[in-house]
Amino acid sequence: MVADAGGDDRAGGDGVTDLLGLLAYASLVAFFQLSDDAALAASIDDKAALAEMAVAEFGHFRLLRDQLRRTGAEPAEAMRPFVHVIDAFHARTAPADWLEGLIKAYVGDGIASDFYRTVAELLDPPTKALVIEVMSDTGHAEFAVARVRAAIEADPRVAGRLALWARRLVGEALGQAQRVAAEREPLARLLAGGAASQLGEIGRMFARLTDAHAQRMAALGLND
Amino acid sequence: MVADAGGDDRAGGDGVTDLLGLLAYASLVAFFQLSDDAALAASIDDKAALAEMAVAEFGHFRLLRDQLRRTGAEPAEAMRPFVHVIDAFHARTAPADWLEGLIKAYVGDGIASDFYRTVAELLDPPTKALVIEVMSDTGHAEFAVARVRAAIEADPRVAGRLALWARRLVGEALGQAQRVAAEREPLARLLAGGAASQLGEIGRMFARLTDAHAQRMAALGLND
Repeated sequence: MVADAGGDDRAGGDGVTDLLGLLAYASLVAFFQLSDDAALAASIDDKAALAEMAVAEFGHFRLLRDQLRRTGAEPAEAMRPFVHVIDAFHARTAPADWLEGLIKAYVGDGIASDFYRTVAELLDPPTKALVIEVMSDTGHAEFAVARVRAAIEADPRVAGRLALWARRLVGEALGQAQRVAAEREPLARLLAGGAASQLGEIGRMFARLTDAHAQRMAALGLND
Repeated sequence: MVADAGGDDRAGGDGVTDLLGLLAYASLVAFFQLSDDAALAASIDDKAALAEMAVAEFGHFRLLRDQLRRTGAEPAEAMRPFVHVIDAFHARTAPADWLEGLIKAYVGDGIASDFYRTVAELLDPPTKALVIEVMSDTGHAEFAVARVRAAIEADPRVAGRLALWARRLVGEALGQAQRVAAEREPLARLLAGGAASQLGEIGRMFARLTDAHAQRMAALGLND
């Protein structure tokens, strides 16, 4: 599954290398982002809890990088096309405080899980098994939910600000995702699952992710 | 081994809680420090390698924290007495660039391993087993050595600056360690291993750590 000019018949072809490269770099950057956010925590216990989420993201990175190597791809090469969009996303969504960092961790974790679940269905069996393994390792979000709920109870006015923030996060994420889909044809082909209208099918995937996000926001006591 | 006023007959007594608290907080902060340093790396591969060292430190933190819980101590409480000195050490030794970060990772990893090895001999069997487990997980230092050597080969003038930097790191570390030994009597008693002169014995331990450090610096092509 090396990205070579000749292409590849198997489901996804070099779209799979693209996908693994995208997810690997996203996980590596999420590790750094969560480590930074953890440093903002006031208590040692909160620092440790967010650092735990960061370490889980590094575990994802490790699994994805190793899979890239197994398929003969050079991990840094596979990640390179996505450095710009992922860095741009994080530059535009730097949390202003601890609560915004928690919301970002929770929203990001949720959308990532949904995306992994959706995309797993489109993959060849070994890549599918890997994606499911990566996904099963999430679920540190309860911590973020408990902290955000407590903050809203303590001061209901923060709910409005955090709801706006969550909406901006999703908007920025979808904006960058649209750029990726437009720029990386093999990846767009993989994600569309062979549908006649690639952009239409990817648009529907994004809509499903947004619906699931709205449900999570409601569970948090925030309007989407 | 809860730090209670009544003391404890077993080797170390609440000195063990002190030791585990100190090592746990040092590991947690090393995790954050190495994550920050990794962000300075120019290439994705270097970023990932330093992030790997950070994650190993978090693994140490997890082992030490779980051991504190098993002994009935509250981890955040056990760490609290050491927050000030460890934070002060890092505030005074913030690396100015990627190479200084690597040297700090290498020097820190080396001194930590030597310290763990020395202290293991003074502990009750379960704590000793834990300390040996924590120690066996290090060894990412080869990466730092290779990068620093290459930088010195490319520009021999950096050797002088890095040697000075390493000397400052050790000076600051010993300075903070002396403060800890002076402030925490139970820990000092544990580290002195029942010697008549606690400060003399601890001074000899520091001298052995400094000797081993000098050997590592020589291996790196730097004078200590």
